[in-house]
Amino acid sequence: MSGYELPMDSGIYGRYVEIATFMRTPRAQDVEHVDVALVGVPYDLGLAYRPGARFGPAAVREASRIVRRVNPTTKVFPFGLCQVADAGDVIVHPYDQDGSIAAMGAFFAALRDAGTAPVACGGDHIITLPALRGTFAGEALGVVQFDAHSDTLDTFYGQRITHATTMRRAVEEGIVDPRRTIQIGLRGSEWDGHDHDFARASGMRVITYDEYEALGRDAVIAEIRRVVGDGPTYVTYDIDGLDPSCAPGTAVPEPGGLSMRDSQVILRALTGLDVVGADVAEISPPHDPTGITAINAANLMFELLCLVAHARATRQARA
Amino acid sequence: MSGYELPMDSGIYGRYVEIATFMRTPRAQDVEHVDVALVGVPYDLGLAYRPGARFGPAAVREASRIVRRVNPTTKVFPFGLCQVADAGDVIVHPYDQDGSIAAMGAFFAALRDAGTAPVACGGDHIITLPALRGTFAGEALGVVQFDAHSDTLDTFYGQRITHATTMRRAVEEGIVDPRRTIQIGLRGSEWDGHDHDFARASGMRVITYDEYEALGRDAVIAEIRRVVGDGPTYVTYDIDGLDPSCAPGTAVPEPGGLSMRDSQVILRALTGLDVVGADVAEISPPHDPTGITAINAANLMFELLCLVAHARATRQARA
Amino acid sequence: MSGYELPMDSGIYGRYVEIATFMRTPRAQDVEHVDVALVGVPYDLGLAYRPGARFGPAAVREASRIVRRVNPTTKVFPFGLCQVADAGDVIVHPYDQDGSIAAMGAFFAALRDAGTAPVACGGDHIITLPALRGTFAGEALGVVQFDAHSDTLDTFYGQRITHATTMRRAVEEGIVDPRRTIQIGLRGSEWDGHDHDFARASGMRVITYDEYEALGRDAVIAEIRRVVGDGPTYVTYDIDGLDPSCAPGTAVPEPGGLSMRDSQVILRALTGLDVVGADVAEISPPHDPTGITAINAANLMFELLCLVAHARATRQARA
Amino acid sequence: MSGYELPMDSGIYGRYVEIATFMRTPRAQDVEHVDVALVGVPYDLGLAYRPGARFGPAAVREASRIVRRVNPTTKVFPFGLCQVADAGDVIVHPYDQDGSIAAMGAFFAALRDAGTAPVACGGDHIITLPALRGTFAGEALGVVQFDAHSDTLDTFYGQRITHATTMRRAVEEGIVDPRRTIQIGLRGSEWDGHDHDFARASGMRVITYDEYEALGRDAVIAEIRRVVGDGPTYVTYDIDGLDPSCAPGTAVPEPGGLSMRDSQVILRALTGLDVVGADVAEISPPHDPTGITAINAANLMFELLCLVAHARATRQARA
Amino acid sequence: MSGYELPMDSGIYGRYVEIATFMRTPRAQDVEHVDVALVGVPYDLGLAYRPGARFGPAAVREASRIVRRVNPTTKVFPFGLCQVADAGDVIVHPYDQDGSIAAMGAFFAALRDAGTAPVACGGDHIITLPALRGTFAGEALGVVQFDAHSDTLDTFYGQRITHATTMRRAVEEGIVDPRRTIQIGLRGSEWDGHDHDFARASGMRVITYDEYEALGRDAVIAEIRRVVGDGPTYVTYDIDGLDPSCAPGTAVPEPGGLSMRDSQVILRALTGLDVVGADVAEISPPHDPTGITAINAANLMFELLCLVAHARATRQARA
Amino acid sequence: MSGYELPMDSGIYGRYVEIATFMRTPRAQDVEHVDVALVGVPYDLGLAYRPGARFGPAAVREASRIVRRVNPTTKVFPFGLCQVADAGDVIVHPYDQDGSIAAMGAFFAALRDAGTAPVACGGDHIITLPALRGTFAGEALGVVQFDAHSDTLDTFYGQRITHATTMRRAVEEGIVDPRRTIQIGLRGSEWDGHDHDFARASGMRVITYDEYEALGRDAVIAEIRRVVGDGPTYVTYDIDGLDPSCAPGTAVPEPGGLSMRDSQVILRALTGLDVVGADVAEISPPHDPTGITAINAANLMFELLCLVAHARATRQARA
Repeated sequence: MSGYELPMDSGIYGRYVEIATFMRTPRAQDVEHVDVALVGVPYDLGLAYRPGARFGPAAVREASRIVRRVNPTTKVFPFGLCQVADAGDVIVHPYDQDGSIAAMGAFFAALRDAGTAPVACGGDHIITLPALRGTFAGEALGVVQFDAHSDTLDTFYGQRITHATTMRRAVEEGIVDPRRTIQIGLRGSEWDGHDHDFARASGMRVITYDEYEALGRDAVIAEIRRVVGDGPTYVTYDIDGLDPSCAPGTAVPEPGGLSMRDSQVILRALTGLDVVGADVAEISPPHDPTGITAINAANLMFELLCLVAHARATRQARA
Repeated sequence: MSGYELPMDSGIYGRYVEIATFMRTPRAQDVEHVDVALVGVPYDLGLAYRPGARFGPAAVREASRIVRRVNPTTKVFPFGLCQVADAGDVIVHPYDQDGSIAAMGAFFAALRDAGTAPVACGGDHIITLPALRGTFAGEALGVVQFDAHSDTLDTFYGQRITHATTMRRAVEEGIVDPRRTIQIGLRGSEWDGHDHDFARASGMRVITYDEYEALGRDAVIAEIRRVVGDGPTYVTYDIDGLDPSCAPGTAVPEPGGLSMRDSQVILRALTGLDVVGADVAEISPPHDPTGITAINAANLMFELLCLVAHARATRQARA
Repeated sequence: MSGYELPMDSGIYGRYVEIATFMRTPRAQDVEHVDVALVGVPYDLGLAYRPGARFGPAAVREASRIVRRVNPTTKVFPFGLCQVADAGDVIVHPYDQDGSIAAMGAFFAALRDAGTAPVACGGDHIITLPALRGTFAGEALGVVQFDAHSDTLDTFYGQRITHATTMRRAVEEGIVDPRRTIQIGLRGSEWDGHDHDFARASGMRVITYDEYEALGRDAVIAEIRRVVGDGPTYVTYDIDGLDPSCAPGTAVPEPGGLSMRDSQVILRALTGLDVVGADVAEISPPHDPTGITAINAANLMFELLCLVAHARATRQARA
Repeated sequence: MSGYELPMDSGIYGRYVEIATFMRTPRAQDVEHVDVALVGVPYDLGLAYRPGARFGPAAVREASRIVRRVNPTTKVFPFGLCQVADAGDVIVHPYDQDGSIAAMGAFFAALRDAGTAPVACGGDHIITLPALRGTFAGEALGVVQFDAHSDTLDTFYGQRITHATTMRRAVEEGIVDPRRTIQIGLRGSEWDGHDHDFARASGMRVITYDEYEALGRDAVIAEIRRVVGDGPTYVTYDIDGLDPSCAPGTAVPEPGGLSMRDSQVILRALTGLDVVGADVAEISPPHDPTGITAINAANLMFELLCLVAHARATRQARA
Repeated sequence: MSGYELPMDSGIYGRYVEIATFMRTPRAQDVEHVDVALVGVPYDLGLAYRPGARFGPAAVREASRIVRRVNPTTKVFPFGLCQVADAGDVIVHPYDQDGSIAAMGAFFAALRDAGTAPVACGGDHIITLPALRGTFAGEALGVVQFDAHSDTLDTFYGQRITHATTMRRAVEEGIVDPRRTIQIGLRGSEWDGHDHDFARASGMRVITYDEYEALGRDAVIAEIRRVVGDGPTYVTYDIDGLDPSCAPGTAVPEPGGLSMRDSQVILRALTGLDVVGADVAEISPPHDPTGITAINAANLMFELLCLVAHARATRQARA
Repeated sequence: MSGYELPMDSGIYGRYVEIATFMRTPRAQDVEHVDVALVGVPYDLGLAYRPGARFGPAAVREASRIVRRVNPTTKVFPFGLCQVADAGDVIVHPYDQDGSIAAMGAFFAALRDAGTAPVACGGDHIITLPALRGTFAGEALGVVQFDAHSDTLDTFYGQRITHATTMRRAVEEGIVDPRRTIQIGLRGSEWDGHDHDFARASGMRVITYDEYEALGRDAVIAEIRRVVGDGPTYVTYDIDGLDPSCAPGTAVPEPGGLSMRDSQVILRALTGLDVVGADVAEISPPHDPTGITAINAANLMFELLCLVAHARATRQARA
């Protein structure tokens, strides 16, 4: 076989058995020999409406018991391509925003220093900022962002670091290249009709849900590939990019969004991009009585893992 | 600015702060200076299966905290076009059907007399009958009805005024012009295969979900515009027009219905029609543990408000 | 009228009145004069992940109060075509797998011997094996299977009779003709990338969700009709064939599945096939707080009934 | 054994098997040979706040699968003392209050005429009025009422027949003897401090929860026995008599109420009274996501059945 | 009558009608003529475990539709004793702890300056600190605290102002007199066995649930009255003082707590104390699917209102 | 300090951070240096009614984040008395009853051989049989059983090993000494009035809830201590021993049971007994939407741990 420590085998061990890790991968005490780290970031102080995303990682770990091993479309078998492990949670703080964001940044930077790529699970969308900071390795990152909201406000309730300002800060810091950044699925009533001005002015490719539908899925896939090109790319999936019928358990649901099917098809079509890190965010278990938000998030996280593992194996094969 | 009293600003005041009114608009004690009144009609004695729609207005007010100000597609900013306010609830009665319906009629008539257009939130679909009566100002109204059911039975359980007979009564009373009326999304198992006979015989344009799909969304939009034309038009959205994945919390869910996306696109495409009143109905909070029915209803109500406010501003500009 | 005992009339008797039977049909004490038997199979020991499908029949009976009488598209009125009745539940055993499966087999065989066609409600997908055994009358059956999973593993947790091996056993026993069998909607992360090898090797037509989308719904309908042809055919709908937004209450939800609309259109388009039996399975009420899984299952069961009743009436008309 | 047709044996047939009747008793098509009829009354138009009790009988039938056969304290085995059966539901009407109440009255009168004692399950507390009317056989009935509310208002929202006026009407009609009537557990904020004046003035023994606690359970039991004496007695248990921790699923929950334990002890201590009929009311399944209200109601219904069956057997033994 | 503007009359206007205010009292735009202000404090950034209490005021307003007018035990009719109104919410901030606490302080101080007594609804228990600051009028307040936790840690996660340090800060600031302070119901696993040391050392009377039970309810009532004496007293009820069976919807539930009955009896027995302000806190609607936490909180808030209104009327009568 | 590896400190690390183990203890890869092992047994094939207890360990691990370190009454600090760790789950099998029970037995026997005492979390009550087998070290064990049911049927649905026969098998095997065994809280309707005959005949002390109440809590505590004496004792808490208001999420809820308070007081009063092992069982998360069953189970598990750790430390001190 691959020589990698595989996830607990759900064909042998009942899925409900043993402490849940992400996709039943081994729990890594250190990340030295881990190629892709699945990371929980149980932080939600960046939210301004419905809290609860701090319980996202726990719920997604439980829901991810359902994930098997091989991507049904791309046939990517991420656990055979490299060592995947659950690196546990970033130790965030219940009150200290700045300290928590620093802890996240340090965690992701340590992964980078160990040569480990992150696939994170939030937590609110603020987590993407430190994840980008930690993943940034000198070359500004391209970003593929699935989201109902642009997250490029300058301030939100007077605050500069919130789940609504993440992408703007990342651009300002130079860790994200807006011309290699694409936002998909934006929608929802707007604050003042200028909600996407910064994104567009900065050079980001903004595909509202209106445009998504007008272009069609295939054209959007092509557009994503065109925008991010060959450079290092980060994929972030805010779960509110999904329609609320697929993700009721989130902080700010916006009707009229992506389906899981569209999301799967698009993500699978990104195979081959140089995806150096990824996350799924804003899963709010207290608002998810049916559990489908967590189940969908677990499956999206698997898609993200397939991309990151494939990119990594490709780089290693080249090296 | 506009001179109008705007909704509480969700960019300044946390959405969860203060007593909920519809879309955080001011609570109007009288409607004299109100152009568009958001009205709750907490009545559900018209239902024959699952009750609970009496709690619809309360749940939609809470859920509407999530709505911002500007329509993302049409860029209509209804609160800047005219004075929008929450006019409170019609004071319906827990036992007295006739009295309650009379109270609704009087409420809507008072709005008309004050020159105020209604955007109502039910309550079961019976509320549309008194809303039409009150909105009627001499010229028979065209109606755009999103619904799983035609609501044109002659009697239901021997009763003439029920949520299943609303549209027939309105036609018989001459307040609705069936030739300017269009029903979209009808479906569900039928009583006897003649469920839509009255609607068709009366001259209504009936678009079952089968036909909706066959025509395609764009053709349906054109058909709506053709049918209702330039005359005064009322738009009613029975939440069971949506697929149950989007609206589990309703009295009589029927699988295979509209998505929120389709609904948003169609409603936005009706901008420019002379929409003189509107409602969303049949939200049943006790059957809505995820809350998405109320969230979707709140967003639909915003779409309806955009139509009504735009039509009103257009009329005023012409005058 | 038809001379058949009709379901309780929901236009006269409030839907919430009286003990629920499937679609309010009469409860048959014996099946001698019953043409189509609606059967509950409250068994879930075949499941390996989330149990609870044993409560499926009870929940679907309650939810089926909502079903009326006439198919809105095909205008089939099943209760007028033949005698439809609720034949109660198979008496399965809480611990004894083998005994329970034998009891199911005997129950379905007794229906066959009485000339009664079954439309069953599970219970987990294991129930389809004894249902096929009992329905089998000498000629290998064609099968139309809606499902997220192929259910053709050789063993599952070392067991040969499970909800994941049903179809393989049926083929091996010669009661199902794999060349007249078609599986629609397969998806979900795979065990090892060879999950569908047996199905394909045996001659089944496997339409993954990827292929479903590539072909388009109309082509899939044509393909179904081509595959099963004129021979006796069984239709099985594993509720996890639906997207989790439509069926959160199931044992193993897989994102990216069929909508209710697509399911309705396909099933209605199968009218005229010689459908000799059918089932809907894997409804798990404890995981269905909104109740939509049961509501959708009840409506699918009505579609299946329309197919079976129509086929039967056609055979009788020919005879 | 007893010669009576017993409930389905839950020691042999899994509790989740077969269509639910009350306590798995046989479904009686007519009541001629039935000694005690378990009756559903799915009516809730008497409610003024939270509707949903129309689904009470269905939910309690499902929950009553859990009940076994013998009372653990009194060792009464009701199914062995007389023929107990599920007589189905009273066919109430979704809109017609007067007609529905007449139908209830006729149903209970028919039971009386057949010599059958009722144990009913509501529906709202209005059902007790026609149940009393039907049970009344010439001698005014004593009543033991467990309730948070006295239900002796003169009118409620101007209406004379509501769930808040039941007991007053029954007294006025002479079918209940107020001096042989006792109300236990009254509490909750009051309308005007005179909420119990009619009850007291009429001669009823009113035991508020304050007095219940002051007297202690044993003294209350003695008081019940003293008040109702040897005459024919009806026991009605409004589920809101329980503390909301035991019965969240009801129309008007009032904190600070009876426990299930106290209720069981008191009801068991009434063994030997001449209980000629009984009911449990106001179970609202849409407000009962945990299901404990229905489970508790099913167990209370069993206690009531033990009383009625024991009384009947005693009368027969004497005759 | 009293001359005061009364709550909307639930005997005339169905409880589900109109926008919910606390107990259906009038919404006061300013507090000049308000004697007792019902105040929402939708703040939960003080929590370290399960967030959601920011939605407490909205949920309690809805649930308080159920409250009538007169205390069933004390017969206090608070709305007739003085002008009671809903003063709306303190405008707290989604991110700014210090600013939010300042806003709360200012709000309560403004009430004091207007001669208006507060009965507040949280929000997490941090709200009691600014409420005490604002209520403090020169004389250190006695406090009656119902709670599972002492809330007298020095720091919590390194923070000085949290829901676990409230009472310590209040003592240190001199606004609370620890010798006139009593804590009732403390329990739950402890951090280190010294959890109550500060409370005791400062002079507070600490009654753990163990001691509560040992003393008995009557003795505890006497002890409360002895401790707080005649001076100005504030009553705070952290909803986790209740057993989780009565209050599942809270941040940190602790089994083995007070019942609603005990709480009602104790609070009613405090009638006559000079209660100058009060609050109920830590209601977390996202964790309250049955809604009983909000219902119980609404009823407790009514008890607190009765105490405050009675004390105020008594002072005025004396003046 | 103690030299033991302590649980993650919830005063430093937010409770929602990191993968949940029981009470945040370290996850032991082997048990060599573990004194008390917290063990999950996710098995529920022993259930005959409502399944789901297989998810009990996962839910209790999550809920146990709330537990602190020191017993508030006994001041026992179990993590300081010995090394406590989460030993993970027994690897049970989704279909194989015998194999699963053998695996449990081997797991517990391995603990015994390592000198490690178990505190287990079920899983259905069948788990207690292999736990007793594994704990048994030559001397028949006394048992303290909190339960609604005696679990001493000979067979259940013809099966000898089920959750209803556990204790009988253990007695027959000689691993439990019935004269040192006491059952507390038995109640619920009975099968035939002889439900407890075996228990009594075998010499067990059976305290039904009736007797529990008659004796009073203190006398029951004394009786427990008298019955089990100084010998090695196992404590098993079937969560259905609690009243359903405290534990709705269980397989077979029985109204009229123990409160959490009573349970805590009794368990704490057993400090000093030679408790060599313990478990809590029958937590069914799919039936626990409020989560209080899991929260209560986590707290009971802490009480059990305190007993086991204290007993072990006492034995070591003596040695």
